[in-house]
Amino acid sequence: MSLKITKPLRTGSTIGILGAGQLGRMLSLAAARLGLKCHIYAPETDQPAYDVSSAHTIAAYEDEAALRAFASQVDVITTEFENVPASTLEFLENLCPVAPRAGAVAIAQDRLSEKNFFEQAGVRTPAFAAVEDLASLKSALEKLGIPAVLKTRRMGYDGKGQAKITEPQDAEAAWQAIGARSAILEAFVPFRTEVSIIAARSTIGQVVCYDVTENTHKDHILHRSIVPATAHPQTLEKAKQAAITLAHALDYVGTFAVEFFIQGEGENETLLANEMAPRVHNSGHWTLDGCSVSQFEQHIRAISGWPLAQPVRFGTIEMLNILGRDIEDLPRFAHEVGTSVHDYGKKDAIKGRKMGHITRVKPE
Amino acid sequence: MSLKITKPLRTGSTIGILGAGQLGRMLSLAAARLGLKCHIYAPETDQPAYDVSSAHTIAAYEDEAALRAFASQVDVITTEFENVPASTLEFLENLCPVAPRAGAVAIAQDRLSEKNFFEQAGVRTPAFAAVEDLASLKSALEKLGIPAVLKTRRMGYDGKGQAKITEPQDAEAAWQAIGARSAILEAFVPFRTEVSIIAARSTIGQVVCYDVTENTHKDHILHRSIVPATAHPQTLEKAKQAAITLAHALDYVGTFAVEFFIQGEGENETLLANEMAPRVHNSGHWTLDGCSVSQFEQHIRAISGWPLAQPVRFGTIEMLNILGRDIEDLPRFAHEVGTSVHDYGKKDAIKGRKMGHITRVKPE
Repeated sequence: MSLKITKPLRTGSTIGILGAGQLGRMLSLAAARLGLKCHIYAPETDQPAYDVSSAHTIAAYEDEAALRAFASQVDVITTEFENVPASTLEFLENLCPVAPRAGAVAIAQDRLSEKNFFEQAGVRTPAFAAVEDLASLKSALEKLGIPAVLKTRRMGYDGKGQAKITEPQDAEAAWQAIGARSAILEAFVPFRTEVSIIAARSTIGQVVCYDVTENTHKDHILHRSIVPATAHPQTLEKAKQAAITLAHALDYVGTFAVEFFIQGEGENETLLANEMAPRVHNSGHWTLDGCSVSQFEQHIRAISGWPLAQPVRFGTIEMLNILGRDIEDLPRFAHEVGTSVHDYGKKDAIKGRKMGHITRVKPE
Repeated sequence: MSLKITKPLRTGSTIGILGAGQLGRMLSLAAARLGLKCHIYAPETDQPAYDVSSAHTIAAYEDEAALRAFASQVDVITTEFENVPASTLEFLENLCPVAPRAGAVAIAQDRLSEKNFFEQAGVRTPAFAAVEDLASLKSALEKLGIPAVLKTRRMGYDGKGQAKITEPQDAEAAWQAIGARSAILEAFVPFRTEVSIIAARSTIGQVVCYDVTENTHKDHILHRSIVPATAHPQTLEKAKQAAITLAHALDYVGTFAVEFFIQGEGENETLLANEMAPRVHNSGHWTLDGCSVSQFEQHIRAISGWPLAQPVRFGTIEMLNILGRDIEDLPRFAHEVGTSVHDYGKKDAIKGRKMGHITRVKPE
């Protein structure tokens, strides 16, 4: 058995996907366009990806027998989320091609490793310092100044595991708030706007970038993305170069996202990398309807040894997330001319849960 | 149980689809975008639609117990092909909402009923006459003249069940060639070009048309579609009005196609309806990548009580079918900028079999 994909996977081949949420679902739908089957592996029952894939395994990420059986039934394994245990990916790497590789995902799982990696790759980030205990938090605060944001190194997303420190005396409360665990302190960035870039790198090192997307968050959850982003062309080019640099430095294979803060205006804009997601990303959902190839198909192409596509954007685009019970109103948007609607097929419309999205495409 | 869909089917609802080929597959993929599951019913094992749907039943279209079980597990039933026995649809109509209705499909299954229906609806067709035996064939030939085309009334597609008659003495050979069965004789139309229109009608009678598509066939199988069609605006409008008229007259629900011949040029163009397909259609595959809503999603919307979308086309479009072993070259097209590739996931690349297609979109 080869642990590298050397020619395009074709009809009858199966993609293994760790994780069964909406990203796995959209990856499965994209794989089907290329004639490929998907086998989903996740611990939860009744998940969005199961309904559109040819097989699924419900088992823990630590269940070596189940992982072994899974690996024997698929041709390449990928993940829909970055918090899959790196040890699971390492275990699978000995059995089957895995993309992105465990080492690349591991770096993005740890905010401190990620920031160190950005710095080593020459990609500018907000000032940061490692925090191991209250004493190191206090000295980090002296170094970076306030306001600053204390973040757990691991398992943070959508604003979870974060505490903002606006006064020196808040340090201990913040340390307790994040669970008194290994952390990173970051200088607070009073940004003008947030942007992200979605890109993909193939098994032979080809990198293709989508146009930079401008994002607005509500309660730390992505609310709205627009393309093209309102930033200076030089800033957009810098974002693209950063994505290419990071992808090569990680020997990354697949679609990924890098999120940035932009400070200042026009030629004085500063671009600071905030984080990297080693997977398809919510801010790239517009590519499903507004572009000749989606981030999902691009990921499948990348990990399956296909050529990447040069995306052609079909106009100016707005993507809006739909959370919780707002999904009930989805048919209302279905009337709009040029609007595409998406329902992820999730059973329970829990408050704050991503249930679907809409995309408005306006040909230019 | 209601046999009408009165409000949009939502998450957790299931579409039942008769037939499991590439059309069923693309319908399943479209249903998933709206959060809906699909249950496929077909007699064949190992079909393209099974891999992307949440359930499938392998049973004959005459198996009443299996049909009954199927109907009890779905919220609406549709078909991916017009040659499903009308009696199957009629049987299901007593158990579950069915769209399009059996009566509408039955008309399109029979070339003679179809042409009579076109005529009654005021939609111009090539001259035709019913043929029941050799004697009626001969008198039909006298009435219509030669050349003419003899076609079986039922089960013809992609040029099957047809014989062209260019000399009066060919009559008997043609009659034997089509199996000496109930037929229709049609005047041969020396057309300038062939076009088709894809449209959909909703449960509340809303009709939405896509732009008219110009089609080229090879060996009676669709080879290439381009949009917009090169025809006079007045001709395009006539095609649209014909589609709307036919949809209302049939009380049709779902996506359908009408194929036309165009004779002459410019203001002297004549539009003649050739046939109607009571289903999504190969000449509408361009809507998957070149349009804000695909014919597949439009069909799912129509039969599920959703509002239809007003489609926005993203440019000038070319769709090419890929038959048989040509599918092996698909990754070659994957390099092209603005080209989308589709592999239907069929196991055996038999000569002449539709294996996939590509779509080239050029923003205008």
